[in-house]
Amino acid sequence: MKLLRLGPIGAERPALLHSDGSYRDLSSVVPDIAGAALTAEGLDKLRAVDPATLPEVDAATRIGACVGQVGKFICIGLNYADHAEESGMEVPAEPVIFMKATSAICGPNDDVVLPQGTEKGDWEVELGVVIGTPAKNVPEAEALAHVAGYCVINDVSERAFQLEHGGQWVKGKSADTFGPTGPWLVTRDEVADPGNLSMWLEVNGEKVQDGSTKTMVFGVAHVVSYLSRYMSLQPGDIISTGTPPGVGLGMTPPRFLKAGDEMRLSIEGLGEQHQQVRQG
Amino acid sequence: MKLLRLGPIGAERPALLHSDGSYRDLSSVVPDIAGAALTAEGLDKLRAVDPATLPEVDAATRIGACVGQVGKFICIGLNYADHAEESGMEVPAEPVIFMKATSAICGPNDDVVLPQGTEKGDWEVELGVVIGTPAKNVPEAEALAHVAGYCVINDVSERAFQLEHGGQWVKGKSADTFGPTGPWLVTRDEVADPGNLSMWLEVNGEKVQDGSTKTMVFGVAHVVSYLSRYMSLQPGDIISTGTPPGVGLGMTPPRFLKAGDEMRLSIEGLGEQHQQVRQG
Repeated sequence: MKLLRLGPIGAERPALLHSDGSYRDLSSVVPDIAGAALTAEGLDKLRAVDPATLPEVDAATRIGACVGQVGKFICIGLNYADHAEESGMEVPAEPVIFMKATSAICGPNDDVVLPQGTEKGDWEVELGVVIGTPAKNVPEAEALAHVAGYCVINDVSERAFQLEHGGQWVKGKSADTFGPTGPWLVTRDEVADPGNLSMWLEVNGEKVQDGSTKTMVFGVAHVVSYLSRYMSLQPGDIISTGTPPGVGLGMTPPRFLKAGDEMRLSIEGLGEQHQQVRQG
Repeated sequence: MKLLRLGPIGAERPALLHSDGSYRDLSSVVPDIAGAALTAEGLDKLRAVDPATLPEVDAATRIGACVGQVGKFICIGLNYADHAEESGMEVPAEPVIFMKATSAICGPNDDVVLPQGTEKGDWEVELGVVIGTPAKNVPEAEALAHVAGYCVINDVSERAFQLEHGGQWVKGKSADTFGPTGPWLVTRDEVADPGNLSMWLEVNGEKVQDGSTKTMVFGVAHVVSYLSRYMSLQPGDIISTGTPPGVGLGMTPPRFLKAGDEMRLSIEGLGEQHQQVRQG
């Protein structure tokens, strides 16, 4: 299934993408694409519904983030060897974990608003993993069973905030609109191998990132298992698994976002995002 | 007001501490001590209620974390000059920000469970600041108006996870039960100066931390204002503002938590916590 959330910011309603290309309203079936709806039982309940019987939603409706009520927005840093290199950092021996504020989450096509004082806004196309069932100390072999599905994330970053203002990376990752998520939560059964998905990102029509999840240092099962040793994972938690090369920070000279820029990004089978950049 | 949440884990009900020392059930007035209930209007609604008219709650009921549905659990690192020194780190030029997983939050007297693989569990008594009204790019002079109130937090930490497993601090801060919060959310009007509160923490009856918020490097108003430039703050977000000296990592030799240890901690006017340590 391709699940999504449609409507104004803060008032999105659950929906699915029907095979005929239309959006169908799920709000008679489930209150939100969130929490219990993401467990195996919750998803089975959605699978049992015939989409043709659900009301159609206007195709022009705003698309929100594909998951609601996200408890944790966890990121894996430097998880592509060639991105670590372009950032001038070592490939880590263990996954690097940091957080984005959950308040950074927005719809896949919402404007990205550069916060006041921004000098070095940057882009990062990433595979998002949405947790479906609680996970704590989960072995790698069982980890994927805890995943509800996958989505596209743009891990928008402010490199001066992240690297030059002292302390930890969260400072450069957490501004409002720095987490476009969606358009769809594609359930796990529709993604044969999360470790073999092509991905790309364009700025103003120029392809700047062109990679594949197959060059990840730590794959999805390892990351979920590893994380679950340090914190428990709950339905609706999102893990953003790192970005391939091609970010602005890695260019010579570095290239950063400015008002008026346009980003397009996609991961194979997970849909496409499109953001305009504005100055806040 | 001293607000709290009473009941089993995950099913806490809102309550207040009446001047006669009894707990009074607020669930007929507000669904939870969370979100909109923490705004100026929400708190005024609670103030308008005569506690004597509310049902009394059994004093033996478990106390949960004093805030529900926390969106972000933000911490300020190295915010006491003498704690930075004992940690072998420099006093930062700007506030150091990191996150704890919101799933680490627990009641003030719940057991602290050391996760599998733990070697270096540690304690940190901290002043918690609970946001009441949304804050974004707020000047320091207006910052305290966005605060609902204050509480005690034990920022339980695993120093090997935090400092020796690579990457960012979140890894050592986020295990379940690593965030005892409460007992009370004490509303801002009852705390004359958050920058002049004595605070202490005992392990097995020995006072190991004995400080005051007056030695904070960055005070509450500065921290709220500063944070609001990097991320928007919402009602129910918690900021844990750093710890004074006396953590186990700073001792010679270092001293770490083990199963059977008992922690007691308190901040002036904000109540007391008491945790037993268990091995997970």
